[in-house]
Amino acid sequence: MEHLNEKQRLEEWKKIQTALVNEQIDQFRAEFLEMHPYDQAKIFEEQDEEIRFLIYTYLSPEEMAEVMENVDFELVSTFITEMVPAYAAKVLEDMSTDDAVDILNELDKNKVASFLTIMEKEEAEEIKELLHYEEKTAGSIMTTEFVVIQETMTVKEAMRHLRKEAPEAETIYYLYVIDVDKKLVGVISLRDLIIAEGDFLILDVMSERVVSVPVGEDQEDIARMMRDYDFLALPVVDFQNHLLGIITVDDIMDVMEEEANDDYSKLAGISELEKEGETAFSSAKKRLPWLVILLFLGMFTASIIGRFEETLDKVALLAVFIPLIAGMAGNTGTQALAVAVRNISTGDSGKRSNFSIIKQEAKTGLITGTICGILITLIIAFWYEDIYLGILVGLSIMATLIVATTAGAFVPLIMHRLKIDPAVASGPFITTLNDIISILIYFGLATAFMNFLI
Amino acid sequence: MEHLNEKQRLEEWKKIQTALVNEQIDQFRAEFLEMHPYDQAKIFEEQDEEIRFLIYTYLSPEEMAEVMENVDFELVSTFITEMVPAYAAKVLEDMSTDDAVDILNELDKNKVASFLTIMEKEEAEEIKELLHYEEKTAGSIMTTEFVVIQETMTVKEAMRHLRKEAPEAETIYYLYVIDVDKKLVGVISLRDLIIAEGDFLILDVMSERVVSVPVGEDQEDIARMMRDYDFLALPVVDFQNHLLGIITVDDIMDVMEEEANDDYSKLAGISELEKEGETAFSSAKKRLPWLVILLFLGMFTASIIGRFEETLDKVALLAVFIPLIAGMAGNTGTQALAVAVRNISTGDSGKRSNFSIIKQEAKTGLITGTICGILITLIIAFWYEDIYLGILVGLSIMATLIVATTAGAFVPLIMHRLKIDPAVASGPFITTLNDIISILIYFGLATAFMNFLI
Repeated sequence: MEHLNEKQRLEEWKKIQTALVNEQIDQFRAEFLEMHPYDQAKIFEEQDEEIRFLIYTYLSPEEMAEVMENVDFELVSTFITEMVPAYAAKVLEDMSTDDAVDILNELDKNKVASFLTIMEKEEAEEIKELLHYEEKTAGSIMTTEFVVIQETMTVKEAMRHLRKEAPEAETIYYLYVIDVDKKLVGVISLRDLIIAEGDFLILDVMSERVVSVPVGEDQEDIARMMRDYDFLALPVVDFQNHLLGIITVDDIMDVMEEEANDDYSKLAGISELEKEGETAFSSAKKRLPWLVILLFLGMFTASIIGRFEETLDKVALLAVFIPLIAGMAGNTGTQALAVAVRNISTGDSGKRSNFSIIKQEAKTGLITGTICGILITLIIAFWYEDIYLGILVGLSIMATLIVATTAGAFVPLIMHRLKIDPAVASGPFITTLNDIISILIYFGLATAFMNFLI
Repeated sequence: MEHLNEKQRLEEWKKIQTALVNEQIDQFRAEFLEMHPYDQAKIFEEQDEEIRFLIYTYLSPEEMAEVMENVDFELVSTFITEMVPAYAAKVLEDMSTDDAVDILNELDKNKVASFLTIMEKEEAEEIKELLHYEEKTAGSIMTTEFVVIQETMTVKEAMRHLRKEAPEAETIYYLYVIDVDKKLVGVISLRDLIIAEGDFLILDVMSERVVSVPVGEDQEDIARMMRDYDFLALPVVDFQNHLLGIITVDDIMDVMEEEANDDYSKLAGISELEKEGETAFSSAKKRLPWLVILLFLGMFTASIIGRFEETLDKVALLAVFIPLIAGMAGNTGTQALAVAVRNISTGDSGKRSNFSIIKQEAKTGLITGTICGILITLIIAFWYEDIYLGILVGLSIMATLIVATTAGAFVPLIMHRLKIDPAVASGPFITTLNDIISILIYFGLATAFMNFLI
């Protein structure tokens, strides 16, 4: 269970490689199985097809299941499909149900059907049920391998039951208690169970105030709950409070990572964060959609400036400040956007009305706008020795900052109320919107004050 | 332990409020203590000073400690300071050592010294030691309340020891095993312990391959490890492998949230994400530093365009495409930056050389640049019926995208090698840098091809 760094992994792999080339199965197994499954997976991923096929014959499906649970999610369907179907079905069977379901969701339907036919019936049924849940809900990330005890058991009986179930269960540190109707009625932590007297009934030692989540709950809300309440696992129930599965903290850490990456990449205007090892082509493919949209939005901005060509012809100097004003608008909008999106996604908003949030952003914009506006007026007045140009740019910056800050908060909030993911109003979108607003303000003011400028 | 939504919390609070006003201590305690500490904390936070002082007299320090562990970190030092010192010291004493240390780190030194004097000696010593560790390292987030067993104990003895220690320990689901020199030699999960035969020695049932982290390890690396290896806790050791403390998964979830917010706010150019409930003034204060820096950088951009005033005077139409080109440069740079920063912070980079990453980004820029360049050339050629202008803008976009994409990856990578947090090269910085580059390219080309444009 040692954590390996790159160098150690390389050395370890050399030993394993030698064993493979010389077909020393025992040697390979001894070295390989000694490692943490995460390291096994990292080493496995780096192999080419030929060696992977050798490894499939050297490891039992159960051992391979542990490897598959830890390989990069984008690679795992390739591996599963290249295995002999009977072996693949066994591997899927031995994985945690939730992980197996994640993989099957990536495969085509015929493939899934054939795997489910080969699989042991009970496991296949469990998987079939989980396959129905919508992505990113409690149902799709829960596992059905958990320990459940009856409220009428004694502590001693519960411990005995637990010992039997422990090897199969995903976690045993919370035990969920059901009544005769199989409804969730309580929870007891293993900590409390081992402290409790053996003859007591579970009913008397359990906590009745068990927190559960409905099967359709959004995974982001679950992550928030787990973080706030410091749970290691959460039970998932249907609308009649029947226990369906549990969600463990390790799955939630992956969700947190995923959701953070999601917000982050949308702020940057990428459809999906690229992984190390991607080709330039696939990177370009992920980034191009936004760039092309922005190109057209940019053309729109250009056509707006085009309408002020007359103004520009008279005072070419005006062009000099376009990037400054557009840039300030873009940046202040992104700041407001980031605060709004993150507060929505961490649940920090929602306590206040939209109106009060937007009023506050407008005030923030007023403060930053006034300060930046005065600053730029002074700089231009002294530098270009043109007080009127200074006032024009200063006023533009001030008006722009107020509008752009408000827009940065307004757009995601409205989207949130319309049940659209607010992060879709990504950075580049707000930036371009604010480009346009700022240019209209700037050239509008410039045209109005033209007499002072020439 | 029910999870309360806003409405439920309000109702609950009304009951509690009534009890407080009527000075019904028992009623208040019954209602309040029934809730999950997180909800207790949320309700407590919303009270004004007068009622908070009442609550301090109604709850024991131990009960208040649980509340304090869950209140918003930014508020907790206010609360601790307003308590009677003897009560506050007791509260700190009863909190998890790691949480108490976090709070004391926020207070001024005299205050800390006086608390430590009042505190129980043993607890004070533990805290004093933890106060020495640098922020954001293993030492600063670990707790010293863990269960440790001797390798020479039997399973039965270990279980007995565990039952005794369980109420105090932060987690009991991993038991760390030490030898006579108090060095960490193994680990056994509670799961394995309860399955093991009672007469076996711990030595024989423990795993010797225990993963530990050095006390100076960065918290971000620890979070990554915990996520990859699915641990619930990690032991922290000194350079001689003495067990110093443990880090539990609930603390790591907070670290993950913190680090994600950090990367995110830097991409958006805010020094720190603002919380709900902040005033417009404090929001403006957090955003202004970047805006002012950008104002000056923007002035620099303006002065560069100023140098091309002659070119602009001849062809005012050139100004029309400034936002388009600068915008494309900014956006493509932010995309590349986001990928690089996130890959560095999730540890996905580092396996490849800087050179190969930058080469790949340049290639990506070449592909996106060529496609966008051709597109814009065609659009301008048909729209403005000016093929030369089209070629000029197209070439500029192409060159800009190649350079800006490369710069977006180059800057954070260089910073990372220089041991500077790559996220410091935040979105606005890269955007402005790329503004300048793009304008130099655009006007440089325009000046060179001037003969074709007029």
